[in-house]
Amino acid sequence: MKTCQVIFQPSGRRGESPEGTTVLEASRMLGVGIESVCGGKKSCGKCKIRIDPGSVDQHGIHSQPNHLSPFTEAEGKILEKNEQAQGIRLACAASIQGDVLIFVPEENRTGAQVIRKEAGEKEIRLNPAVRLFTVTLSPPELDDPQADYERLVAALAERYGLPRPEIDYPALLDLGGALRKGNWTVTAALRLEKEILAVFPGEVEEAYGLAVDVGSTTVAGYLCSLHAGRIVGTESFMNPQITFGDDVIARISYVMDNPDGMDKMRGCIIDGLNHLIRNVTRNHGLAPADILEVTIVGNTVMHHLLLGIDPRALGFSPFTPAIHRSLDIKARDLGLKANPAANVHILPIIAGFVGADNVGVLIAEEPYRRDEMTLIIDVGTNGEMLLGNREKLLSASCATGPALEGAHIRFGMRAAPGAIERIRIDPETLEASFKIIGEERWRPEFRITGALGICGSGIIGGVAELYRAGVIDQSGRFRTGLATPRLLTTDGKPEYVIAWPDETSLARPITISQQDIRSVQLAKGALYAGAKLMMKKLGIEKLDRVVLAGAFGSYIDKTEAMFLGMFPDCDIDHVSSVGNAAGDGARIALLDRDKRLEAEEMARRVKYLELTLEKEFQEEFMAAMFIPHMKDSFPHLPPPGKS
Amino acid sequence: MKTCQVIFQPSGRRGESPEGTTVLEASRMLGVGIESVCGGKKSCGKCKIRIDPGSVDQHGIHSQPNHLSPFTEAEGKILEKNEQAQGIRLACAASIQGDVLIFVPEENRTGAQVIRKEAGEKEIRLNPAVRLFTVTLSPPELDDPQADYERLVAALAERYGLPRPEIDYPALLDLGGALRKGNWTVTAALRLEKEILAVFPGEVEEAYGLAVDVGSTTVAGYLCSLHAGRIVGTESFMNPQITFGDDVIARISYVMDNPDGMDKMRGCIIDGLNHLIRNVTRNHGLAPADILEVTIVGNTVMHHLLLGIDPRALGFSPFTPAIHRSLDIKARDLGLKANPAANVHILPIIAGFVGADNVGVLIAEEPYRRDEMTLIIDVGTNGEMLLGNREKLLSASCATGPALEGAHIRFGMRAAPGAIERIRIDPETLEASFKIIGEERWRPEFRITGALGICGSGIIGGVAELYRAGVIDQSGRFRTGLATPRLLTTDGKPEYVIAWPDETSLARPITISQQDIRSVQLAKGALYAGAKLMMKKLGIEKLDRVVLAGAFGSYIDKTEAMFLGMFPDCDIDHVSSVGNAAGDGARIALLDRDKRLEAEEMARRVKYLELTLEKEFQEEFMAAMFIPHMKDSFPHLPPPGKS
Repeated sequence: MKTCQVIFQPSGRRGESPEGTTVLEASRMLGVGIESVCGGKKSCGKCKIRIDPGSVDQHGIHSQPNHLSPFTEAEGKILEKNEQAQGIRLACAASIQGDVLIFVPEENRTGAQVIRKEAGEKEIRLNPAVRLFTVTLSPPELDDPQADYERLVAALAERYGLPRPEIDYPALLDLGGALRKGNWTVTAALRLEKEILAVFPGEVEEAYGLAVDVGSTTVAGYLCSLHAGRIVGTESFMNPQITFGDDVIARISYVMDNPDGMDKMRGCIIDGLNHLIRNVTRNHGLAPADILEVTIVGNTVMHHLLLGIDPRALGFSPFTPAIHRSLDIKARDLGLKANPAANVHILPIIAGFVGADNVGVLIAEEPYRRDEMTLIIDVGTNGEMLLGNREKLLSASCATGPALEGAHIRFGMRAAPGAIERIRIDPETLEASFKIIGEERWRPEFRITGALGICGSGIIGGVAELYRAGVIDQSGRFRTGLATPRLLTTDGKPEYVIAWPDETSLARPITISQQDIRSVQLAKGALYAGAKLMMKKLGIEKLDRVVLAGAFGSYIDKTEAMFLGMFPDCDIDHVSSVGNAAGDGARIALLDRDKRLEAEEMARRVKYLELTLEKEFQEEFMAAMFIPHMKDSFPHLPPPGKS
Repeated sequence: MKTCQVIFQPSGRRGESPEGTTVLEASRMLGVGIESVCGGKKSCGKCKIRIDPGSVDQHGIHSQPNHLSPFTEAEGKILEKNEQAQGIRLACAASIQGDVLIFVPEENRTGAQVIRKEAGEKEIRLNPAVRLFTVTLSPPELDDPQADYERLVAALAERYGLPRPEIDYPALLDLGGALRKGNWTVTAALRLEKEILAVFPGEVEEAYGLAVDVGSTTVAGYLCSLHAGRIVGTESFMNPQITFGDDVIARISYVMDNPDGMDKMRGCIIDGLNHLIRNVTRNHGLAPADILEVTIVGNTVMHHLLLGIDPRALGFSPFTPAIHRSLDIKARDLGLKANPAANVHILPIIAGFVGADNVGVLIAEEPYRRDEMTLIIDVGTNGEMLLGNREKLLSASCATGPALEGAHIRFGMRAAPGAIERIRIDPETLEASFKIIGEERWRPEFRITGALGICGSGIIGGVAELYRAGVIDQSGRFRTGLATPRLLTTDGKPEYVIAWPDETSLARPITISQQDIRSVQLAKGALYAGAKLMMKKLGIEKLDRVVLAGAFGSYIDKTEAMFLGMFPDCDIDHVSSVGNAAGDGARIALLDRDKRLEAEEMARRVKYLELTLEKEFQEEFMAAMFIPHMKDSFPHLPPPGKS
């Protein structure tokens, strides 16, 4: 039987499927979640997937529409004409006829991503840019025929002492209707007490804002009450740009090689954000127009691609961004379907590869208020680091790839229900146990549903445990001659079984391969080497504190991360895992406008170290690929084999 | 033979046509100019006309597609699918089968409108909001990797001492490309020295702006050099909204009666302005994106409809506008296809029916700088008046209808080549002579082409001459028993022949009918009555100065206007005709930003008199319908019969 290469995007999950398998069946074998309500009966229309003609995977797999079976009558009944034109198919109706690259739209994926740490521990001072003011006006009369706007402004001045605010155009269009519908009582939403963004009939008590962290791999949005300051809802999705390239360099290349590359990249992230806005508002009984302010963080390339700024200058020395300072752009200008008058505040960026996300981390963690020398690692597809204290601040960036976010490793998946998030390996028996997201206890003792894959924290912990248990050596290679059935050899290459077929929903084992271990080593080696060079630059021998941040940061076990050698030695009690600090920064900027000024000032104060220009980088990187390191000592690390 | 009622819009020309006549033939019989290059051979596609299903003329004529002959194969070859869907036909192919209302798109009309007075006499201080700054930057290097924007801002500060301007989003998108294309020399266009609107590669010396006067009947645009201050080009078109109603009240009604009325009204004026922008820039070797600033004046209803603000509150007491103050809106927000970053400055409005056009007149004429009591009449479909001096200022408005702009009178047309603009009638022989636009000498001695119709100044002058020669009496009625072949009786109604068939291009005489005379009387009576009540309000016996303004103002003969009784008696040497003063005001605001502040201040100082609430208005109006007036004396008027 002929088998075909199948790759699912944006997850990057790949595998072989027998010819004739439906796309839905293949997705299940590979642990890719596609919605299906009717169970493959071609009636619910939930399992839509898309073939983008001509798109090419990094391994050269082309997306050919004719590598799927011909369009069926059943699909003709369910899919709209424009969907058909876009290459959309039903996964239960289309079967695989050749190598194929398949895109699963966000809304047709099962399992929303879990971002546990919904509320940061930090106290955020509540001082939002947008506030509500309710006033009652005297209706116009013949001897007082003043215009609506002037009448509103007079009432705002009288009741709140506000000096004559401007009015944004969309609000002006709604003004007359709102005044009359509210019987001359209205609530005006003002930005910085200077601009009327919206006018609602009657009395309204709550205004909403959205803080967004646009990562290369994961995009997270936090819907916040601007009045109470709390998080009302959280939504996330995988950055659909991953179809065009795993990391920032690949995406810059895509723009350079494709005339419509910029439009596609910008289009899909804006579509994704609009989908998020629709979902997160609908799930909480709100409308997109209720969002009156948006803050955005993201690395420099994400920042440029979101705005539609040509990123190619970021691809070559001297890696010049278009702008450092923060931006305030109307939602309507960006194409964001929040309130059209909403201001979108995009945090400043530091350098070509140290972006607004890192500025978010900066204002969330505030290393500049401390005496201790703190290393902050924002773990992501683009690893960004900050080192410093109140005296000095240095930033750097290194390409780690998406492995640490669970993407593009063999059984990798994002942090969603069904993902293995923690792994333990017994050094005596070499047996594995694991815990999956959505369950409280550890496998194999406890089990409800099968595992679907391994997320970022799982792969970091898994590699650390493989080393600690002696399954792999310091160089990351599997040891030979170990007496365990978990070590398989497939196509001459060793892999370690984390979950047996009956523990998974895939009907085959979930393993960690030599290639997966290499991906993790490359990523952690880059982070470690970067940290070393930064310490050298600032003349520091020893770290006082380490902060691990990232969209999934709260899942990383700090001891496992240190075992793996993600950063130089530090007292483990002074290492902390803070979750999505970049997202926290976006939320802080949303809720406290003064923090925006702080961000601007700090972004200017931070010095930037271009690691690729440092002569020792390659050498440090090679040494740091070892677990935990080729030669550096870790006095604070417990000896291997003890947990 | 059956004849059908045919009405052409936006000119309002109407007449009977035999069934089976092509639309092109009918247009020629009625003196409506429709382009035709192939001469009716159905090959050039220039003679496009449109039938808007369901639109209704004031006389109840419906626009029924089936009142034209069926769609032909020849049209199928020339017209695009979307044109067909919009009801577009070729005038040479479609023949008339019933009463029909036909819209002739601007681009398919012959004869561009003539606006003679291209440059006002006024000296305008040159101090535009938008200025150009050329700088050369040092290219970024690895030890100076500053971002493009910060680099530009530093160069602007160094060379011109400009404090850190903001950058508008579209300019940010172009910044990197412009810097690299210009080899690090660029010209930045800044608004108020505070905001970068555009960045051009290399050195650019000239920036452009557009001043627009949106009248109920005529829209005029002046493309100006912001550097030299001169007018580069002028374009005008008939306001396509006239299809939905002749005057502001009719258009408000249309919005109230039609759910999509607002969108249609706004859509067609924005389309018209975009067409004007394309033409006026192309004709001068420029692109729409070269327009970096736009100023707009218009009456309050035009102002609201252009912005998309629901105008219905303007239709009822207390006639409340949405806003008085001036507005600054980005061209992209308005849908104007100038430079997307261009600011559109809309001048303030005074009251429900005294709009930004009158504010334009105010800053152009500056009555507030004089001791003499000045009456300014802005003659248009909506007649707006100002009375005052440096002590006090009063404004008022009256609906005059479009007759004084040559629309909706029997042989009326706009001021375009072929229009009769001056008429003289010999009191002895009762013979007429006339002058048409585009020719230097008077008929009948001199003739190149036939006359097509009578424009606004022609109809005003014609009625005045009919009275002065004794053809009509003080009440406007034709006298009986006059010995002249020029007085015809058609359907029992008298009309006076201005041009015999062989002097026209219509193969029939051009006449002034009793109905035409009534329309002029109604318009001039309203203006006169308004002026009288304003004088009474300010306690004034006598006018020191009169200024006649309007899109075609320079054509009105001041003596004829006084003979007709358009305004109370005044020394004729102190009456002047200033042309399009509202358009001058828009141009002044474009070229001198300080005048915008003056406009804002003066708009607040002007008091408004609601004429419809004045008890004496009806009585004054009735008396003022007489020529020149029922009882008022005109000591400064020469006796009738002397020219």
